[in-house]
Amino acid sequence: MSKKPNSSQPDLPRLEQLLNYKFKKIDLLKEAVTHRSAAAKNNERLEFLGDSILNFVIAAELYKRYPSSSEGDLSRLRASLVNKEGLFLVSQDLNLGDYLILGSGELKSGGYRRNSILADTVEAIFGAAYMDSDLERCRMLILQLYHKQLENVPDADTLKDPKTRLQELLQSRKLGLPEYNVIEIVGKAHNQKFTVDCQISKLELTTQGSATNRRKAEQLAADNIIPLVLDIYKK
Amino acid sequence: MSKKPNSSQPDLPRLEQLLNYKFKKIDLLKEAVTHRSAAAKNNERLEFLGDSILNFVIAAELYKRYPSSSEGDLSRLRASLVNKEGLFLVSQDLNLGDYLILGSGELKSGGYRRNSILADTVEAIFGAAYMDSDLERCRMLILQLYHKQLENVPDADTLKDPKTRLQELLQSRKLGLPEYNVIEIVGKAHNQKFTVDCQISKLELTTQGSATNRRKAEQLAADNIIPLVLDIYKK
Repeated sequence: MSKKPNSSQPDLPRLEQLLNYKFKKIDLLKEAVTHRSAAAKNNERLEFLGDSILNFVIAAELYKRYPSSSEGDLSRLRASLVNKEGLFLVSQDLNLGDYLILGSGELKSGGYRRNSILADTVEAIFGAAYMDSDLERCRMLILQLYHKQLENVPDADTLKDPKTRLQELLQSRKLGLPEYNVIEIVGKAHNQKFTVDCQISKLELTTQGSATNRRKAEQLAADNIIPLVLDIYKK
Repeated sequence: MSKKPNSSQPDLPRLEQLLNYKFKKIDLLKEAVTHRSAAAKNNERLEFLGDSILNFVIAAELYKRYPSSSEGDLSRLRASLVNKEGLFLVSQDLNLGDYLILGSGELKSGGYRRNSILADTVEAIFGAAYMDSDLERCRMLILQLYHKQLENVPDADTLKDPKTRLQELLQSRKLGLPEYNVIEIVGKAHNQKFTVDCQISKLELTTQGSATNRRKAEQLAADNIIPLVLDIYKK
């Protein structure tokens, strides 16, 4: 059976197999894979709906799986799963690019733009499944497609930014707060480079970070000092 | 029966009556009304969960009620309902302030801070109802408490910013684009006042707007000119 990528009549029964979900109303699936460049009846409304379902299903799953995680940790974990990147990973497992209905202009679009279209389409498929059946069936579809990612959720701590991680690390060891100082700014406006150092006086440690703004430079300096702190406490 | 506002033992059976929902696990409702200032086991996790449920339930309701609204309109409508203000209105219908469990520091807090606590608690109650029963029962609770607001959703157009509304108004009448020009900037940096005019040449209309930045001034100028355009077309 030959597949025609991006044809205007994608092989939807094949996509149903990959989804492990058979639509009662196949038009809903067709709407879900139709980009706005191809038709007035496209997947934007379903994407709106699917996005809210996905957010809820993942929130509820994390709430139950991590009974002692704080609200902040749960939020960060969710954000790491339901962002464009997580959705793009799901689209890759489905070879979703073979099933998109795109307008002629979008057929050639590549890179980030195409990945974003794929991510949006995954959300639209969730919306379509919900409209086709009910929340429970849609929830099962989401958990199945997110199975791998849910089994490999990153440690909540690694999702925090370096300055926050460093502060918590020092507080847990009663080492006070780190100190950040700008030590150099070079270049003209709009093209400056900031160099910042991060000091932990009680440990006599100093690191540096350089970036296009002060905040980023501080984060880099913090990121550089964390392994040094951990090293001291390993010994 | 005397009510003790903000006592550490609020009259939860009375709150259940107002919610028209009887909890199987009353501890969930107690957790939902417990602010983080009062106990380690507080409503923050339930708020995280309830927020996602509320977003989904309102999204699905709007999706079904407005079958021809664009994704953008649906997003704006939802945002107008599930923001802190919408949640605060719900809390007022429930006299929720009488049932909060607050730490001694928060007992005295007033104004915006207190309204925000009330709004968060409404979300936590939705999370608690979901954990106590299921999504369908929780959905009914949300739709009941949002009944008034759902019946009075603002016109999607009024939620757009004035410049967008003006542009759509002019395009629908083939009147071209409005033109914005900064005509005055007074004051020093960080305390400037921008005055901008908005011109529609084909109608020979001009209005002005003044604000602390250019964008806001343009919005005001657009907001001022819209009634003038509508006036012309009434005649």
